Parts: sequence; structure tokens; C-alpha cells
Amino acid sequence: MSAGEETRIETDSMGELTVPADRYWGAQTQRSLQNFRIGGETMPEGVVRAFGIQKLAAARTNMKLGVLDAKIGEALCQAAEEVAAGKLMDHFPLVVWQTGSGTQTNMNSNEVIAGRANEILTGKRGGKEPVHPNDHVNMGQSSNDSFPTVMHIAAVLVLEETTLPKLRRLQEGLEAKSKAFEKIIKIGRTHLMDATPLTLGQEFSGYAQQVKYAIARIEGTRARLLELAQGGTAVGTGLNSLDGFAEAFAAEVASITGKPFVTAANKFEALAAHDAVVEASGALNSAAVSLMKIANDIRMLGSGPRCGFAELLLPANEPGSSIMPGKVNPTQAEALTMVCAQVMGNHTTASVAGSNGHFELNVFKPVLIYSLLQSAQLIGDGAESFLDNCIAGIEADEKRIEDLMYQSLMLVTALNPHIGYDNAAKVAKKAYAENKTLKEAAVELDMMTAEQFDEWVRPENMIGPRKA
Amino acid sequence: MSAGEETRIETDSMGELTVPADRYWGAQTQRSLQNFRIGGETMPEGVVRAFGIQKLAAARTNMKLGVLDAKIGEALCQAAEEVAAGKLMDHFPLVVWQTGSGTQTNMNSNEVIAGRANEILTGKRGGKEPVHPNDHVNMGQSSNDSFPTVMHIAAVLVLEETTLPKLRRLQEGLEAKSKAFEKIIKIGRTHLMDATPLTLGQEFSGYAQQVKYAIARIEGTRARLLELAQGGTAVGTGLNSLDGFAEAFAAEVASITGKPFVTAANKFEALAAHDAVVEASGALNSAAVSLMKIANDIRMLGSGPRCGFAELLLPANEPGSSIMPGKVNPTQAEALTMVCAQVMGNHTTASVAGSNGHFELNVFKPVLIYSLLQSAQLIGDGAESFLDNCIAGIEADEKRIEDLMYQSLMLVTALNPHIGYDNAAKVAKKAYAENKTLKEAAVELDMMTAEQFDEWVRPENMIGPRKA
Amino acid sequence: MSAGEETRIETDSMGELTVPADRYWGAQTQRSLQNFRIGGETMPEGVVRAFGIQKLAAARTNMKLGVLDAKIGEALCQAAEEVAAGKLMDHFPLVVWQTGSGTQTNMNSNEVIAGRANEILTGKRGGKEPVHPNDHVNMGQSSNDSFPTVMHIAAVLVLEETTLPKLRRLQEGLEAKSKAFEKIIKIGRTHLMDATPLTLGQEFSGYAQQVKYAIARIEGTRARLLELAQGGTAVGTGLNSLDGFAEAFAAEVASITGKPFVTAANKFEALAAHDAVVEASGALNSAAVSLMKIANDIRMLGSGPRCGFAELLLPANEPGSSIMPGKVNPTQAEALTMVCAQVMGNHTTASVAGSNGHFELNVFKPVLIYSLLQSAQLIGDGAESFLDNCIAGIEADEKRIEDLMYQSLMLVTALNPHIGYDNAAKVAKKAYAENKTLKEAAVELDMMTAEQFDEWVRPENMIGPRKA
Amino acid sequence: MSAGEETRIETDSMGELTVPADRYWGAQTQRSLQNFRIGGETMPEGVVRAFGIQKLAAARTNMKLGVLDAKIGEALCQAAEEVAAGKLMDHFPLVVWQTGSGTQTNMNSNEVIAGRANEILTGKRGGKEPVHPNDHVNMGQSSNDSFPTVMHIAAVLVLEETTLPKLRRLQEGLEAKSKAFEKIIKIGRTHLMDATPLTLGQEFSGYAQQVKYAIARIEGTRARLLELAQGGTAVGTGLNSLDGFAEAFAAEVASITGKPFVTAANKFEALAAHDAVVEASGALNSAAVSLMKIANDIRMLGSGPRCGFAELLLPANEPGSSIMPGKVNPTQAEALTMVCAQVMGNHTTASVAGSNGHFELNVFKPVLIYSLLQSAQLIGDGAESFLDNCIAGIEADEKRIEDLMYQSLMLVTALNPHIGYDNAAKVAKKAYAENKTLKEAAVELDMMTAEQFDEWVRPENMIGPRKA
Repeated sequence: MSAGEETRIETDSMGELTVPADRYWGAQTQRSLQNFRIGGETMPEGVVRAFGIQKLAAARTNMKLGVLDAKIGEALCQAAEEVAAGKLMDHFPLVVWQTGSGTQTNMNSNEVIAGRANEILTGKRGGKEPVHPNDHVNMGQSSNDSFPTVMHIAAVLVLEETTLPKLRRLQEGLEAKSKAFEKIIKIGRTHLMDATPLTLGQEFSGYAQQVKYAIARIEGTRARLLELAQGGTAVGTGLNSLDGFAEAFAAEVASITGKPFVTAANKFEALAAHDAVVEASGALNSAAVSLMKIANDIRMLGSGPRCGFAELLLPANEPGSSIMPGKVNPTQAEALTMVCAQVMGNHTTASVAGSNGHFELNVFKPVLIYSLLQSAQLIGDGAESFLDNCIAGIEADEKRIEDLMYQSLMLVTALNPHIGYDNAAKVAKKAYAENKTLKEAAVELDMMTAEQFDEWVRPENMIGPRKA
Repeated sequence: MSAGEETRIETDSMGELTVPADRYWGAQTQRSLQNFRIGGETMPEGVVRAFGIQKLAAARTNMKLGVLDAKIGEALCQAAEEVAAGKLMDHFPLVVWQTGSGTQTNMNSNEVIAGRANEILTGKRGGKEPVHPNDHVNMGQSSNDSFPTVMHIAAVLVLEETTLPKLRRLQEGLEAKSKAFEKIIKIGRTHLMDATPLTLGQEFSGYAQQVKYAIARIEGTRARLLELAQGGTAVGTGLNSLDGFAEAFAAEVASITGKPFVTAANKFEALAAHDAVVEASGALNSAAVSLMKIANDIRMLGSGPRCGFAELLLPANEPGSSIMPGKVNPTQAEALTMVCAQVMGNHTTASVAGSNGHFELNVFKPVLIYSLLQSAQLIGDGAESFLDNCIAGIEADEKRIEDLMYQSLMLVTALNPHIGYDNAAKVAKKAYAENKTLKEAAVELDMMTAEQFDEWVRPENMIGPRKA
Repeated sequence: MSAGEETRIETDSMGELTVPADRYWGAQTQRSLQNFRIGGETMPEGVVRAFGIQKLAAARTNMKLGVLDAKIGEALCQAAEEVAAGKLMDHFPLVVWQTGSGTQTNMNSNEVIAGRANEILTGKRGGKEPVHPNDHVNMGQSSNDSFPTVMHIAAVLVLEETTLPKLRRLQEGLEAKSKAFEKIIKIGRTHLMDATPLTLGQEFSGYAQQVKYAIARIEGTRARLLELAQGGTAVGTGLNSLDGFAEAFAAEVASITGKPFVTAANKFEALAAHDAVVEASGALNSAAVSLMKIANDIRMLGSGPRCGFAELLLPANEPGSSIMPGKVNPTQAEALTMVCAQVMGNHTTASVAGSNGHFELNVFKPVLIYSLLQSAQLIGDGAESFLDNCIAGIEADEKRIEDLMYQSLMLVTALNPHIGYDNAAKVAKKAYAENKTLKEAAVELDMMTAEQFDEWVRPENMIGPRKA
Repeated sequence: MSAGEETRIETDSMGELTVPADRYWGAQTQRSLQNFRIGGETMPEGVVRAFGIQKLAAARTNMKLGVLDAKIGEALCQAAEEVAAGKLMDHFPLVVWQTGSGTQTNMNSNEVIAGRANEILTGKRGGKEPVHPNDHVNMGQSSNDSFPTVMHIAAVLVLEETTLPKLRRLQEGLEAKSKAFEKIIKIGRTHLMDATPLTLGQEFSGYAQQVKYAIARIEGTRARLLELAQGGTAVGTGLNSLDGFAEAFAAEVASITGKPFVTAANKFEALAAHDAVVEASGALNSAAVSLMKIANDIRMLGSGPRCGFAELLLPANEPGSSIMPGKVNPTQAEALTMVCAQVMGNHTTASVAGSNGHFELNVFKPVLIYSLLQSAQLIGDGAESFLDNCIAGIEADEKRIEDLMYQSLMLVTALNPHIGYDNAAKVAKKAYAENKTLKEAAVELDMMTAEQFDEWVRPENMIGPRKA
């Protein structure tokens, strides 16, 4: 705090601490601020907002179970809803690099919600009366089950509200291009070398399929992310929670979010391991692998304008280089591939963190959810930006595509049925060695007439299996 | 070849090469041997055997479609079956570090099968007559669709015949231990620190659940692995293949293997990307993360015998240290955690390799399948060895477990309902500061009688939620 | 921009754009803001401040070479110094996920410095007169050499001003503990199992050595980070730069920063690859590996208080659990190990990004420097927080340590010279089987008297080689 | 063992076991074979041979220190030399996935050397008389210091005898090409887009510089790899070893290998951590990142022959595709990039394994050295194969290179000093829009004569800074 700033005193079991007067947080949040001066990565908004949902659901459940006073409960719910709506983000100053159970952010949530609820009820910000951070806001909960619950809520929400819808838009955009390009026949390339032809639409259909499966992979992680640890309390047994709390709580979260959350089948696993987070990170890693391939292809196909493949014209979104006028760069592909590199690294982080749990608790929870939420957001945003600012505006340079294709020596493959593989090879080799067209070579070798060549070598007949 | 070794001459389109007389391979295999002197990792047996299946299925399909002569086809099938049975492994000398399409191993398969079929038909090993490696064995195929087909066949077979059954055995073994230990109440540990109690059975139930979900994750990758690229030929279009070949081929593979393989929905994706392999690698990475946690717990719980946690007695499988008599080490946990580290690294390899495809072909195919098969084998074998040589023989040291639990200050939590949280805290702090039992502290503080303590502090009441 | 916000018009070669009136940035920055709505990770402060240094050094060099007007140059220098001092951070809104050359942040720097210099000279914020973003601020530079120059400046500064000093403090703190604990003899543990004794000081000396070497590894990357790409301009040739500019520029940066920066030996490598960044990331990864081991040991040695190893007493920095009074958790070790997981993941990101350059330019520059700076900051801060809030306050529980050591069966090793290995083994096995002390077992077996045992089994004689 | 195989009986402290009569190994090796049926990756030859060196050095040291009988010692040395020479590889059947201290391979070495020494002395293979595996071969050693000693010996030998020499050859080969291509001016490419020109020699100079630095990075790990753990015995204290043994042993290893090995500065670090292995793995990872970039560039520059960049002609080492006659693929680049992916994954393995040590011992030793040796071998072999079979035979297609360069619109940059940036931009845009040459556009715009254009636009003046 800077000198002159207004403050108030808050307390916890270790004593008094001075906190800024305009903040809702209490002593434990303040203590964490002082003990963990590491980096600047504050707990992601997705986590904070999910804590709002989690505290809201817990309060409603406790009221239903008759253990939480209605007046206190209602103020608490109002405050929790504000947290869930992202209105109190300035009151969550803690960094990711704190205790590995996320206890300090759980207490930050408890303190802010209590502090705000007390303000609602008494006009006075902060404190523990009449709403107590532990006794009321954290009632029947432990950080050890609350934080993993929040991890799953935050993960499901970002995946379903950002990642998946944006990937679906990208898939549709790629499919639309595949359709639009379905008649453009182009040279195929394997090992980066000229190969037999395919349509540009077929090429894009492969990209669309990759994204379709990326979506399916992410959806496949849903069942396990929908399981909530709440009710396990300290070690998974549910000590000090009420029988039935876990199920009722999950139903509340389902009702609040509109997602079919359920209580975890095994609370010991749900506290001690975060395999579901590692799994979801893995699905995003797979998506990154797919998007890296697609973005690389797009920028290579757009390379040029004079000295590259130059089959595609990518939208020019920014001015050219200050040195080189007219230069247009595949900047969206670059942003997306950087996102992919980040997501692939985050997956290593998640795997290392997930593998290092001990006994009844994994204590890499904050970094696990930090990396997962970043990956989920980046894949979604990256896909959408790539779609809107690149894919949607791509045009095919049909003349260039046709020129290249007809230059390709691999069209020789179409001659096999007519003159045999060995003769076809001679045509190709002569054309290559003497820098001629296949037709010129074929005619010079007296293997066919120019008319025959034109009849036999038809790229449009080379883009599918032959009828049996 | 060493001097004096008997040889014969084989040819390919680049000319003649000398090959060992007792080998079935031909010129292209020999050429690869000479051009790729990199490391010593030969193509895995799983790949070679899957090539046997792939060539067998292709030959049968071609015979059914009427394009492959029956006599040639039957000899070819017999040879392919020998490859599929692993009988000709000595004839597959090529390393993983070859062309990225796996073409050389495809040609190795074509040459060996032709060479063996020719021997069957003529008594003379090798050569191209009457069975030709390209025209007959590779009929209607390209390396570009054959190798990815083989990747999926090999992956499905190892996952379903090794990885999954062995993980299921581990799951059952852990569940059996969970049942056997269901009445042993022990101290829980969070943050590695003493926490409230749970049963040893509950602890093991978490491990069993982790393995159960690891299995589900691997099973979840099956649908995409069951898709076969065959029929795409060079670039995915199916050029030079017969209409219907792809579907008939997949049905043959399904029939041969008993697994419901189908033709890939999109052949462009199936050649240009190997996201399904990356996905499967990710599922194995998740399994590694789970097993790392379990194995770490087991060895920590078995640490001692005098100066560690020492709650579990692990089987003594090997003699003690040459310096320290009687020393028993958790060697199975060590082998398993090394396996996990390897699998986690393999997943980075797969992700890097999968992300670097270009246009119509990903050319990291051999390293992708090498790393996936290694991971699948190691997770399976590691799990089984861990089960048979460690988990199955674990005994609980019930006296030690009970002693530790009753020493734990965290049992104080049970006093909260009777004397309140603050008084309970005083009891715990006094006991800790003066190195006393909770009972001694509670009685000395005049908060209860010894009888009351014994009635209130019952670990068996602390291992679940309280009834509402 | 929100409705009603005051704005002004800025232009670039693609046309006009509206920017907020209170910001110095211009059209290209604004355009990037609109085209790259991806995540929320803005370019790190270290990069922005290094751009201040880079533009300052370039302006001074250009003035010395007589190509930049003094009046313009001085205003430009003043503005650049403000950027270097971190005073204009609010004017750098762009995210990491932009063009892979970092061009947009280079232009952001050019625009902000020009806009501020124009304000200094004319009282009017923004614009291109009299100071032009390209012609003056970017004079003789390209993004392609400026951004990698900034990467190296930022990397060297954070490593030398944060990472290394903080690691050195940790090394010293560990050495101090090693000295303080040099007389405390304790049980050693290998495979987590009881082994022969060592001093607690020896144990800590291993940690200190790990940190010492971590420092050496980071220092070892310095030579290549001190090389600056500036002067390579667009593709490494230095086209449109003045002969001598590169060397003079590097000297200016050395003078400004006090670090011995030099011009890169090969500008093609310096633009097209960022192996030096990958290398530095690797050194931080090694440091993370070391710190993970140390932090794990510390938290395990502090586990308890009653049911763990409990040899060390870690400082209690925060209140205990809301459920479990008196619980103290090794929270600093947890924060540090989470940092390690993040750094290990960042290294995968850096490796993937570094491997994907094409031709004359690597276009993963922003993510490379983002991940490196994060790793460098976190390792430094994490080490310091761990030192100040954990290591410095660690106390040894000498009684517990002594009790455990004397219980250890591995002291039997000291009997080998007196009664032979086989007899020693009998003593150990009897003690273990009958839960007795070694002395009891040895005496009961009539192998020695109690006095002999006491004379022979002296842990203080077991902590070093025997004299020859 | 198969039925009917001849066997003999060997014993260890757990009892008798049957081993194959023709093998030198004993009971502990046999026991490990039975307990660790995991995968098929046997301990690398580099490790086995380094064990030969380690046992030889230990025996010589023990003879010099007067604690090992000369006759026994000499037979033992002879046997150890055979192991060091790789003559007894068939007697080392154990897999990597064993105890994490490598104890079983240490015992395998002890047993084989004793068994062979006994054969030398008595004519009878195996057994423990007169040479005992523990008492003589393992004298003064523990697996805990022997295995890490072997790790460092094996690592230094492969790096210095394979990796570095082969990388140096690649560096020289790239430098030779850089020299050979120094007069060929070509289009530069940034963001994959046409940029200003450089020479092909300059481009290759960047590759050579990358390899030069890759070598420097690997060399930079040498100092710490030269430190040997031997003398630390069980936990680092050196218990039961003779004072002076460690130093004398290191001197023997230095003498045997010709490498300046020294005894480790801190034995606790040397047993409990393998940061030096992680560091070396990191240097190889950096090399992989560099080689991936180079190999990618080469294959892209060679793409075509008609529809790609096609500036380079890569050697045609194998026949073309069975479908596409005349197809030549960049197979060496593919093998090398697969190697790079493997090495990058191995580095994740090493990092995970290195971070998971506990107390006095890291028990991921076998997987650490397995992955390091594989990476070192593959980088070396991959580099050499790439050099010999690709780089050395590369030819530039000078006509194609010149054609592309003169088509490039980015040559317009040379007009800036003559007609100004804005007019130059007009020329470029007109040329692009109307698909004309720059000269045509410039002349049509009446900005210059064709003669002026030819005088001003000279690529040979665009490949370096301008004179001040």
C-alpha cells in the first residue's frame, strides 16, 4: 500500500493486518499478498467468477439444508452473484504462485463475499460480522474440495462458451471454403514435392475434418470435467459436511450454469489427482497440433507473391513493411501458430503438475487451472481471429493454380494405362531433363499425338478412384 | 555385409544392388540400409506385423475385385500371413529414421513378401518374378495410405491386446486392495501434512478410480484410430485405386483382426495429419500422469522401515544393498515412474511430429508410430509388473497405521461440535507445544474428562459426511 | 473504445483510424488491436522497456552518424527514455498473439515515441510531424532486426537483474543453512528408504551445489544473448543501413545498460533463428528441475508434525486450515514447484517456437520472449520468496532427527568390519523381525557386548570415507 | 529359458536361481530378468561399456591402494576390458525399466565380470570364487555412486566421439556450401513472403552459424559431465570407501578414456540430482531446434521440381514413388527432422525424470541415461547422414534462382533513394496489380528510363549495408 492510502484493520488467527479501505478482502488475502511476491500472473477471471458460482451454490444448498440463516444467506448470495458476474475483479489481487491448494484464493473469495455481504447488510465494508468468511461463506466446504470444484466449473464454462463455439465457427468456415473451392483442381504435394492433383476443396476438406475431430476430442473430455469434488471436504471423506450436500450442491451448480454437473464418483480421486484437467489440456494440445498444421499450410500456399507457392491470396490486414512496399504478411497464421506453441507448452506444464500429487491432495491446482484456461481461451480466440481475419477472406489465384498444375510432371501418371509405367517414366524424365512440357516430351518421343495427350491427361479424371 | 557372406543381386529403378542371399529383401531395402545409418532403433515389430495384415487384406481385396491373379494372390497371402505372425522379423532391418512417409518400410514389406512368395512358388528366394513387389504386393496402394493404415492397425492392436487388458488388471488389483483395506483407518495427509483420517481402502479407491478413468480415456481414442487411410493412395484422392477398394479393404482388416476398422471419413486428413495418433499419445500421457501419482504414493507410504511413513509393507523382490543389509527398495514403483517419464516425453515427440505436416502428407510417420507403440507397450507392461510384483503383495502395517493415526493432532477436529473451534484449537496447540497427546492436553485444560475424549474422538466417525 | 471517449484521427498507408485522444499510439497500433483479439496477455513490460533502450540507442547512433537531425533526435531520445523507464506502459496495449515478427509492437514503439516526441516539441500528442514513426524513430531499422535485438536486451536484463541475483541469494541462504546444520547427524534415505547417515549440513550442501550450478548454467548462456541482431535490417544483409551502424548501435546499448552487448557475428542466424533464447530457456528449465527437487525434499522433510518425516520445522506463515486447527502447510515449496512446472512447460513452448523458423525469419518471436521473460522472472521471484519465507526460517528438530537416526537399522553397516557382513545382516534382520534395537539384537545374538556396540556404532564415524 | 537349454545354479542372498549355462551373469541379473518384464529396451551399449571402464578403473585403484589382490585384480581387469570393448554385450540382458538406481545393471556388471574372471582363472564360468561380484568387482563402490559415474562416462564418450565430431563435419559442410554459393544472389523470404535479396552463401552461413553454436552449447555442458560421483558410495558421504579413492579413481578413468574426468565437487549433488544430464539433454534439444530449422529450409528450397520454390537440387538417393515416376523426396531432411522430434521429446523425459529425485538419491537414472545417449547418438548420426547424403550433394539451380529474384517486387526497395518511398510503392503496386515487371511499371509510370532502372536496380548492391 502506498503512504497516505486509507486503510482498515482486519484479523485472522495469526493477528491483525492493515488492508486498503476500499477493498473487500481481509487478513488472509493481505497476508498472501505479502508472502507471495512472485511474478504478476493473477488468478484468472474464469477462476474468480467460478468461485462466485461455487459460493452461491453452496449457500443455496446450505439454506435448503436448513443450516444457513436466510438473511445472511441472501446477502451472501447477492455478493456471490456479483463475483460470478465479474464485477468485483479488483478485489482478487492474488497471484497463481501461492499455496498449491488454492486456499488463499478460496479465502480471498470467502473474505470478499463476506465483506461485500456485510456491506449490504450493515453499510460497512469488510469484517466478519454478521457474515463470517469461514463460518458462513465457506460453510461445509474446504479449500480442498472447493478449489477443484471451481477448476471444473471454470474449465467447462470456457470450453463450452468460448473454445468450442469458436472452433465450430472455424470448422464451418473451412467447410464453406471447401465447398467454394470444390471445382479448382490443383497440384498436390507430398514430401513438399509435386504430386498428383486434387481439388483445392478437397485440400480444405482435410482442414475442416481436422477441426471437426479437434472439437470431438474436446467434447470427449466433458464427462469427467462435469464431475465436481465438492463434498469431499478436507481429504475426500466429506468429514464435517452433511450427507446429501454433495449431490444437492452439484444440482445447484447445474441449475446456475445450465451445464449438467454432477457430484464426483470418487472424491479421493477428485482431490488428489487432476487427471481430468490434464486430459482436457491434452485435447487442447491435439487441437493445437491440428491448427499448427492448417496455419502452416495456409501461409505456405499464400507465400509469394512472385517467388512462392502463391496459390492463395490472403487478406491484407495491415500495411506492408516500412522497408518493403506492398509486402503483405500472413500475420493471422503467425498469431495462431504462436498460440499453438503456447498451448503445447502449457500441456507439458499440466502434465508435470498433474503427475506430482501426494497422498490426499494434488497441490499444483492453481497452475493447472491457469494453464488450462489460458489454453482454452487462446485456442478459441486464435481460431476465431484466424477465421475472421484470414480464412474467410482467402481467395484462390485460379490462374496460378492452373499454370502450376499443368506444369507438373506428375500428371504423367495418367499415361500409365495407355503407354505403360516405363514409357511414362521416360516422358517424365525427358520433360524434366530438357525443361519441356509433358506433352512436348510425349510427342517428341513419338508415343502419342498432341490430341491423344490432351484426351488422356485430364486432371479432372485424376481426383478420385476409378470406377470398378 | 561382411566379406565372404553369400549374396545375390537385386535391382530397382536406380540400378543393381547386392543383398545377403539369406534375406528376402530387395534393392530398395538395401538402399535404405546404406543411406540411413542413424541410430539403431529398427521399425517396431508391431509395425512390421501390421504390414503383414495390411498386405494380406489388400491382396484379398484385390482378388475379390478380380484384379489380382489367384495363384499369385495366394502365395502372396501366405507370405503376408508369415509377416503378420512375426515369423520374418529378421528380414526387416530398417531403422525408424528413414523417409518420413515410411515408404522404405512399405517397400521392405513389399520386397519381403514378394521374395517369400516367389520362394513359395518357384523355390527361389527374392526377385520380382512371378510376384512383383510393386505390381502385386503394393497393388492399388501407395506408401502414403499404406503406412498410416499400418499405424492405426498397430496402435489399435497394442492398445487393445496389451495396454488396456493390463491396465484393467491393475484396476482390479487396486480395487481388491481397496476392499481388503476398507476397515483400516489411517491418517490422511494433505500438503504432505497430517490431516483428518480416512480408510486405507478409501485411499486405494482413489487409485483404482484413476486407473479406471485412464482406461476410459484410452478407450475414447478408439473411434478415430479405427479409421483407415487405405484407399487414399498418393494424396488422398484415391487416384489409381478402384472405387470400393477402400471400404472392402477395411472390412478385410476388420475380419482379420476382429476389430471394427472402417475406412476413414476423409482421406486427406488421414494422410496429411496424424491427430489420432497424437490423441492416443495424449491418453497414454494422461495414464502416465495417473500412474506417476499412484507409484509415488505407494513408495512414500512404504518408506522406512524405521524412519519413513512405513504404513505399507511392499514385497521384497530382490536382495538388499551390498552395503546395507536388509534394505528393500520400492523397485517396481521406480520402474513404473521411469516408464511414466518416458511416456510423457514421447508425447512431446508425438506433438511436435504431428504438428509439422505439410500439404498432403505428414512425413513424421515412423517416429509417430514408434513413440506411440513404445508408450502403449510400456504403460501396459509397467502396469502389470507393478501389479504382480508390488501391488498384489502389499500388506498394511496396521499397528504402525493405528499408532500414527492416534498421534495425529488433526483428530482434534472431532471436538469442534462439543467444545467449539477455538477451544479445540487450544487443545491442539497445547498438545503440539508440549508434545502431549490430544487427550492429555484436553484433560489438563479441564475441557473434558478422559472418558468424554474417548467417546467424542472416534476416527471411525470421521471418515464420511455426517447424517443430515 | 467506449462511446463518448475522446478520440483523434491517425493514418497509415491503409487509411485513417480513430484512436483514443489520450494515447500516444497511432494507426498501426490501433489496427493491430482490432485484428488480434486473442487472449489478454499483453507484451511484457521487459519488452516494452527494452524497446525504449533500443530506440534510444538507435537515435543516438543515427545522430552520431549524422543522419538524424539533433532537435528531432533529442526529443525522440527523451521519449525513448520515458519508455525505457516504464513510464508509458499504458500506451502499449498489444497482445503477444500478433504478427510473429513483433512488427506491431515495433510500430507501437515507433508511434508512441514519435507521438510523445511530437508532444514535447509541439505540445500536440501523436501524429507524424515533426517526428515520424518510421522515418525517424525506426531510422535504419527493420522490425526484423529490432525485435530480436529487444528480445536479447530484455532477456539479459531480467536474467542479470532478477534471476541471477535472486538465485545467488538462495545459494547463499542454503550454504548458510548447510553451515548451521553441519553437526546434526541424521539418517540418509535412498529410494526413500532408510540408509546410512549423513549430516543435515551435507544434505543442504547438495542443494546449494545444485543452485550454484543452476547459476553457472544460466551464466553460460550470456555470451550468445549479448549478441544483437540490429543492423541486419530486413533479411540479415543490412540493406539500407549504414556501414558501421550495427557496431556503433551495440556499443550504445552496452553503454546504456552497462552490459557488454556486441553486434551479432552472423545476422542471418540472428534473424532466422532464436536458438539463444531456446538455450536460455533450457538453462531456466534446468534450474526448475533443480528447484523442484530441493522444494520437494524440504516439504517432505517438514512433513508431519506427527505422522511424517518431521525432521525440519518450516516457518508458519499463514493460519491453518479452517477445518484443521494448527495445520501449517509448506506453501512456499508449493508455490515454487508450481513455478517449476510452468517453466518446464515454457521450455516446450520455446523449443517448438524456436524450431519453426522459415528461411530468413523466425516468426515466433513474441511468444519466445514472452515465455522466456516469464520463466526468468518466476525462477528469480520464486527462489527469493522460497528463501525469505521458508529456507531462512527453517529449524531442525534435533531430537526427532536423533531419534530416527538411532532407530535406523542401517547403522548396522558399521558392524561389518568387526563381525563381518553376514553376521551384521543377521543382526539387522533380527532387529527388524522382532522390532528391537540393533543393540538389543546384537547382544541377544551374543555377537558383542553392549559396550562394544556403543563403541563400534558411532554415526559420527559414518559420514565420510575412512582414512586409508 | 527354453526347455532343454543348459543351465547352472547361481545364488544370491534370497536363494538359488537357474541361469543359462552359456551366460556369465548370476542370480541377481536373473532375478531382475524375471521381475521386470517391461518393454524391450535393453540398457544401451554405451552404459555397458562405460561399466567396463568403471570397474576397470575401480580395480586398478583398489590394487594401487593395496586392498585388492593382484591376481584377482588382473583377471578382473581383463574381464572389465572385455566389457569395455563391447565384447560381452550378450551378457547384459536387462531392460532400462528396472530399479531406478540402476543397481541391477551394476550387479549385472559385477556378476559378468566376476563370472568371466573366474573363467579366466579357473576355466569355470560364473560363480563367486575366487572372484566375488560384490567383494572384488564392486569393492569400495555402491550402485549409487557407480551408476551415475557410468552415466557421465558414457555421456562424455558419445558426445565427444560421435555427436560433436559429426556436428563439426556438418558445420564444415555447410560452410563449404556457403563459400561455394557466395556469388549466387537470390530472393530473401521473411514471413515466407518475398523480401529483399541475399546470397545463397549468406543463407547457408546462417545454417553454419547455428551448427557452430549448437556445438558450443554441447561443449558448454562438458565441465559438469566430467565430474564423477564415484567415492560417494551409498549416500554421498563416502562411507566404507578409502580416503583418496575418489580422486585416484577419477584419475584412472581420465587415463583410460583420455578425457579429463575429475571427482565431483559435491557427492551429495552427484547422487541425488542429475542436473548435468538434464543440462546436456537441453543442449541436444537446442541442437535439435537448430537442425529442425535447417532441414525444413532445405526441403522447402528443394520443393518442386515444377511447383515449389525449386531453388536447390537435392541428391536423388532412392527411386521415386511407385505411382509417380521421377519423384525425388527430401528423405534425409525427413529423417533428420524425425530425429529432432525424438530428441525434443527425450528432453521432456529427462526434465521430468531429473526433477523427481528424493533425498539422497535420484531414482530415474536408467531412463535419464537412456534418453541422453539416444539423443546424442541420433543428433550425431542424423547430422552426418544429412551431410553425406544431402548437403554435400546439393546444387543450386542458378537459372531458377535468378528468374525468381528478378521477378521479385521487393527489388523496388532499391528505387527509394532515387524516386522516394511513395513513388517506389506506386511502381510496386502497379507491377503487382497488372502482373508486370518492375521495370515495365516504372517506365510506364514515366518515373525513369529502362536504362536508369537497370542502373539503379542491382541486386548485387542490395546484399550489404551501404557505405557511410
